Amino acid sequence: MKRKLRYGMIGGGPDALIGGVHRVAANLDGQLELVAGAFSSDAGRSRRTGKELFLDPKRVYDNYEEMAKREKDLPESERIDFVSITTPNYLHAQMAATFLTHGFHVVCDKPMTLNLKEARALRALVRRTGKIFGLTHNYTGYPMVKEAREIVRSGKLGKIIKIVTEYSQDWLLDRIEATGQKQATWRMDPELAGMSCCLGDIGTHAENLSRYITGMEIHSLCADLATLVPGRKLEDDASLLLRYRGGAKGVLHCSQVSCGEANNLNIRVYGTRGSLAWRQEQPNELQHAVKGGSTRMLQRGSSRLSAQARKFTRLPAGHPEGFIEAFANIYLEIVSAIRAKIEGQQGTFDFPTVEDGVMGMAFIEAAVESSRSDAKWVRLDGV
Amino acid sequence: MKRKLRYGMIGGGPDALIGGVHRVAANLDGQLELVAGAFSSDAGRSRRTGKELFLDPKRVYDNYEEMAKREKDLPESERIDFVSITTPNYLHAQMAATFLTHGFHVVCDKPMTLNLKEARALRALVRRTGKIFGLTHNYTGYPMVKEAREIVRSGKLGKIIKIVTEYSQDWLLDRIEATGQKQATWRMDPELAGMSCCLGDIGTHAENLSRYITGMEIHSLCADLATLVPGRKLEDDASLLLRYRGGAKGVLHCSQVSCGEANNLNIRVYGTRGSLAWRQEQPNELQHAVKGGSTRMLQRGSSRLSAQARKFTRLPAGHPEGFIEAFANIYLEIVSAIRAKIEGQQGTFDFPTVEDGVMGMAFIEAAVESSRSDAKWVRLDGV
Amino acid sequence: MKRKLRYGMIGGGPDALIGGVHRVAANLDGQLELVAGAFSSDAGRSRRTGKELFLDPKRVYDNYEEMAKREKDLPESERIDFVSITTPNYLHAQMAATFLTHGFHVVCDKPMTLNLKEARALRALVRRTGKIFGLTHNYTGYPMVKEAREIVRSGKLGKIIKIVTEYSQDWLLDRIEATGQKQATWRMDPELAGMSCCLGDIGTHAENLSRYITGMEIHSLCADLATLVPGRKLEDDASLLLRYRGGAKGVLHCSQVSCGEANNLNIRVYGTRGSLAWRQEQPNELQHAVKGGSTRMLQRGSSRLSAQARKFTRLPAGHPEGFIEAFANIYLEIVSAIRAKIEGQQGTFDFPTVEDGVMGMAFIEAAVESSRSDAKWVRLDGV
Amino acid sequence: MKRKLRYGMIGGGPDALIGGVHRVAANLDGQLELVAGAFSSDAGRSRRTGKELFLDPKRVYDNYEEMAKREKDLPESERIDFVSITTPNYLHAQMAATFLTHGFHVVCDKPMTLNLKEARALRALVRRTGKIFGLTHNYTGYPMVKEAREIVRSGKLGKIIKIVTEYSQDWLLDRIEATGQKQATWRMDPELAGMSCCLGDIGTHAENLSRYITGMEIHSLCADLATLVPGRKLEDDASLLLRYRGGAKGVLHCSQVSCGEANNLNIRVYGTRGSLAWRQEQPNELQHAVKGGSTRMLQRGSSRLSAQARKFTRLPAGHPEGFIEAFANIYLEIVSAIRAKIEGQQGTFDFPTVEDGVMGMAFIEAAVESSRSDAKWVRLDGV
Repeated sequence: MKRKLRYGMIGGGPDALIGGVHRVAANLDGQLELVAGAFSSDAGRSRRTGKELFLDPKRVYDNYEEMAKREKDLPESERIDFVSITTPNYLHAQMAATFLTHGFHVVCDKPMTLNLKEARALRALVRRTGKIFGLTHNYTGYPMVKEAREIVRSGKLGKIIKIVTEYSQDWLLDRIEATGQKQATWRMDPELAGMSCCLGDIGTHAENLSRYITGMEIHSLCADLATLVPGRKLEDDASLLLRYRGGAKGVLHCSQVSCGEANNLNIRVYGTRGSLAWRQEQPNELQHAVKGGSTRMLQRGSSRLSAQARKFTRLPAGHPEGFIEAFANIYLEIVSAIRAKIEGQQGTFDFPTVEDGVMGMAFIEAAVESSRSDAKWVRLDGV
Repeated sequence: MKRKLRYGMIGGGPDALIGGVHRVAANLDGQLELVAGAFSSDAGRSRRTGKELFLDPKRVYDNYEEMAKREKDLPESERIDFVSITTPNYLHAQMAATFLTHGFHVVCDKPMTLNLKEARALRALVRRTGKIFGLTHNYTGYPMVKEAREIVRSGKLGKIIKIVTEYSQDWLLDRIEATGQKQATWRMDPELAGMSCCLGDIGTHAENLSRYITGMEIHSLCADLATLVPGRKLEDDASLLLRYRGGAKGVLHCSQVSCGEANNLNIRVYGTRGSLAWRQEQPNELQHAVKGGSTRMLQRGSSRLSAQARKFTRLPAGHPEGFIEAFANIYLEIVSAIRAKIEGQQGTFDFPTVEDGVMGMAFIEAAVESSRSDAKWVRLDGV
Repeated sequence: MKRKLRYGMIGGGPDALIGGVHRVAANLDGQLELVAGAFSSDAGRSRRTGKELFLDPKRVYDNYEEMAKREKDLPESERIDFVSITTPNYLHAQMAATFLTHGFHVVCDKPMTLNLKEARALRALVRRTGKIFGLTHNYTGYPMVKEAREIVRSGKLGKIIKIVTEYSQDWLLDRIEATGQKQATWRMDPELAGMSCCLGDIGTHAENLSRYITGMEIHSLCADLATLVPGRKLEDDASLLLRYRGGAKGVLHCSQVSCGEANNLNIRVYGTRGSLAWRQEQPNELQHAVKGGSTRMLQRGSSRLSAQARKFTRLPAGHPEGFIEAFANIYLEIVSAIRAKIEGQQGTFDFPTVEDGVMGMAFIEAAVESSRSDAKWVRLDGV
Repeated sequence: MKRKLRYGMIGGGPDALIGGVHRVAANLDGQLELVAGAFSSDAGRSRRTGKELFLDPKRVYDNYEEMAKREKDLPESERIDFVSITTPNYLHAQMAATFLTHGFHVVCDKPMTLNLKEARALRALVRRTGKIFGLTHNYTGYPMVKEAREIVRSGKLGKIIKIVTEYSQDWLLDRIEATGQKQATWRMDPELAGMSCCLGDIGTHAENLSRYITGMEIHSLCADLATLVPGRKLEDDASLLLRYRGGAKGVLHCSQVSCGEANNLNIRVYGTRGSLAWRQEQPNELQHAVKGGSTRMLQRGSSRLSAQARKFTRLPAGHPEGFIEAFANIYLEIVSAIRAKIEGQQGTFDFPTVEDGVMGMAFIEAAVESSRSDAKWVRLDGV
């Protein structure tokens, strides 16, 4: 295939944050072309964004239903290959369903849906349509996260016995939702965000990251969700004790009100023969301690890393890659999967799927249930 | 008073670790003279240690009862002013009681006793005798820990809403107690260590540190204690969810089996207007984030620190002080308290007391109870 | 203007490094479209690259002269707006001259030319043609470098008295040029690289960075260039003492054979009232020490940074940006300058120009002269 | 020998800094007893200090000559074994000579003398008397510095080709000598400090450290000394290019006016097969990069370190040791050497000697000469 893939975007209009991130990530490697969009529920704002993005005005739509329908009617050589959904949570399920049923592949932001029931329904639809569905748990796109997974898989850590995962931020330390700040307003509204704010917004990233690296699933959890800034309907802080299948223990804590923390996602994986530590804010490094030995600082770009880590790196060591590059790695794999699908080829691709979305929603529901029942241990069964 | 204080030591014989630390800490500032000891339950070993320490052989005793009795019989100008107890936990209560009742002040290692009941009895005895009792929760001796406390007290952090405390080590990753390693053997023996290994050995330090800095007490806790290395009678890992009086939330986790962690005690205190982060392994720094501002790295030795932090520092900034200096600060304050007592003066001194010991034992018992009842929230009442 | 700018590339074929970096940087913000190229002196390789980049085969050229000529003949609505030159040094001057004289704006990699004479001639040509000429001293694209410049300009540091700049790497620790490694081979060949390897490749970045941040020019220098790995025709290490106009002192050292250093460019600027420290390998942070105060860690993405730093940031604090984003910032400003030129508007733009290129070549020549004369102080006059 | 050694101190009265450091360092390990002193040129102040140190008033002297004479007259079982000289530079030579000729061993602060001539004379006297002479280049006492030396000796770094040494401070950023600050006043007075301030005070530490670790001597140097704060008679900043015997290159820069730097002594040693980096402000770590491999963080206290590093460590990894402990290590070795001398035994001891003092003075004189001759390369011959 000798062409760039074409995609459209829902959401990502003026004042949006994550839509713009999707776009630069999609731009980076020159594999994709943004050709259509319904960037806002306000048609005028959608058109303004389309213009800024140099889009053909005919392909800037007033709403996503129209977009799905009209793109489907375009000749195959023009219409989008997939859509990227970057709207608030409550819209994900219906938008994804619409595009899937109109024959498009879908990239969707997280958390996947409003609740576990929706998530399972979406999974069923993805399976039925056979379309590619990518969920942007973007932190798994970092090369050193992939290196971490390879180290775990290699057995170098021995048996994993303890996992500590944290995701701390402070952007909700003030009640900015009360002043109309857009990102905060919908995240703190149960109608739009679902049953959780902190867990949905960042806790699921932490859960996904620990599962991606270790391959281990949570058996049961015991949670304490808190609204530390008074007046909110949803939690802005959550602490969890975890028991993984196989016997490992875990702590996972996340907060949106931890003053001074910008985007402090970090994980430590302790095994019987070694450990790993990775911090998202210094993503080019991975610390690997070997039992009875010294601690090694592994650098992205090193020729000694695993093939999987090297595959997702663009620059030599010492030339920092960041958040956008990791996000772009998710897109690269989704693009590869779509190309393979178009060309009728098989392949294994490394990106978060609808299964991850279901797991994430199950995690949130279990945590909310545990916290409401005063920290009862809740099992994550039958996902 | 124009003399050094005199002290004796129980424990601290060959192969001991903490006894030697007490001695160098006590040496550091030239305020103390070690003049007596019962360094081992083996009289020959005790004498060997006494000789290495240049002690008068007449004051190296075969056991602590003899030491208490014979020191008491010495003229006031010769006998010890206090005793330092550096033996396994199960001996603390009886040794402390013996010396208190013979009229001596006492310095005792932590955890204070085998259980809460013993702790309360010891507290009663300390109150009754009116003697100084210092508990070596040495980490509160660090100048930057004192600075942290002053910052909290100043109100600069606003209302504290979240506290994350960790104490991770890896020295018990192998079952070294099975090979006779002395420190591990008694710590993993319930007869000698009490109902807990990890919490007693290091968890209480974490609890004490967070209480020292914030002045906040735990209202209730929910714990998951684990024996991650099979074959042990006591836990080597513990994770806790905490609720502080006043509404703050906390996470406290500690482990003796986290590969690659040497002595990673660290704490983060998050308030509505600022936060603090301190790591024992880089103890000369304290990170202070101001809401809406930048993060400041405070340095021990700076002239801009609080009087309390400056009081406990010996060297200018950039000249690192460490564990021994912090430990020596505890001794300095105990010495000041004893001097004041001898001279009949009043004063307020900054060192951990028998009250801290009672709190520590209450913390351990509550955690054990919570974990045994499958993470029930347990209140710490009526300490 | 409602369109993306179009550009072509010279160099950047298979095995090239920096050409690919230019492309992803140019992709990032969706402002540019790569539409033409002469990617290799081997026409077949050039075509292969064009195909991988989804280019129209008609605009993949066999050599740069042909490209300049045929692009000029295209209608204005199709032809490139500018060319990016990413070849070895010895070709820069002639290629730039060709495109400038054919009416195109030029982006050129550094060092700008083979020597100072060429550099001055190119400057004259740029002035004569009135075209935009951007030199990719990409490190000045980092937001925190811009913040550093703003802090210096604000006077917060007082008078600058000392500047320490370093650029250490280790990729030439082995004589990989002897094994045909492409990047190394031409850099160690005086015919292709000029009179210097280490200074030209990385020393000029260090010089440019210190001048960008402080606005201060070198008055004179004293250099010791070394070939630490035997058998080379050019230096792989250089250490310089610097005297800046106005009286400040400096040290600048760079090396391509410092084992363990990946891309360690760093600078410290000391003034009478404060100092700054920045490290390229952790580019999202800037350390600012205030005299008599504490050291502040400034974070890219903070709302408290200068407008100039905020203008060049895409993501909130804690979401790391890296090398590509900084490189893209250089492109963004060049694009703005070209758009302004096309639209006949005035404006001030923040990117390295042909003047920086002349300064860089003067710096290299002075250093070589000083080193050859056994560390005589050499003045940088009449640039 | 079953006793502590006895020592006396010259200098170290009220307001002194380094005398107090010598005392705590000497206290630490319980091997030494301070029994005499002439703490100040003001007899009253000397007595006050003696009292605070619990000394017998009879052994607190009005001046050092009296001290040497009267201590010599005491019975061997009472008199001091050695003296510690902690006064300004200009007094070192005469004081050391007096005590050596009265039969005492000597510990002396650095720089050793006022100039090279004095240094050579002192060396001759030390040789003639056969007494132990220890010079407190205390930074070589750090265990990880010793580990660094062992790694170099092991050949793991291959051939050393580049050494970068820095010692930056900011305590002289204001002209505090003009306000009578004691430490600054004498250091900026050529009569009391000699021909150099910055090099004598801290540059010699840097020179000594690099020589200690690498065993390599400077062949020639090219220096630029500067008085960056106007009005001073001596330099407060110095930058040097170095050529080591054997062909390695070096940069050494030091400053007392680098705002924000507390005590930033650091060194990097680059070889053909590996490199080391050590920073005094984080002294428990040593970074070791292996060519083609990863970077390892070595920790003081690890059982995998060399015997020499382990010998000089008191605490397990993760329990920070600092400046005082390193200083105490110098004392420990000097004590061992004196004990061996007393007992008539042979031995090799690891502490800086009169030879180091001569080298240090030669280094200072060469740097001053080079700087005065406008950066001529000056050889360090015939030390």
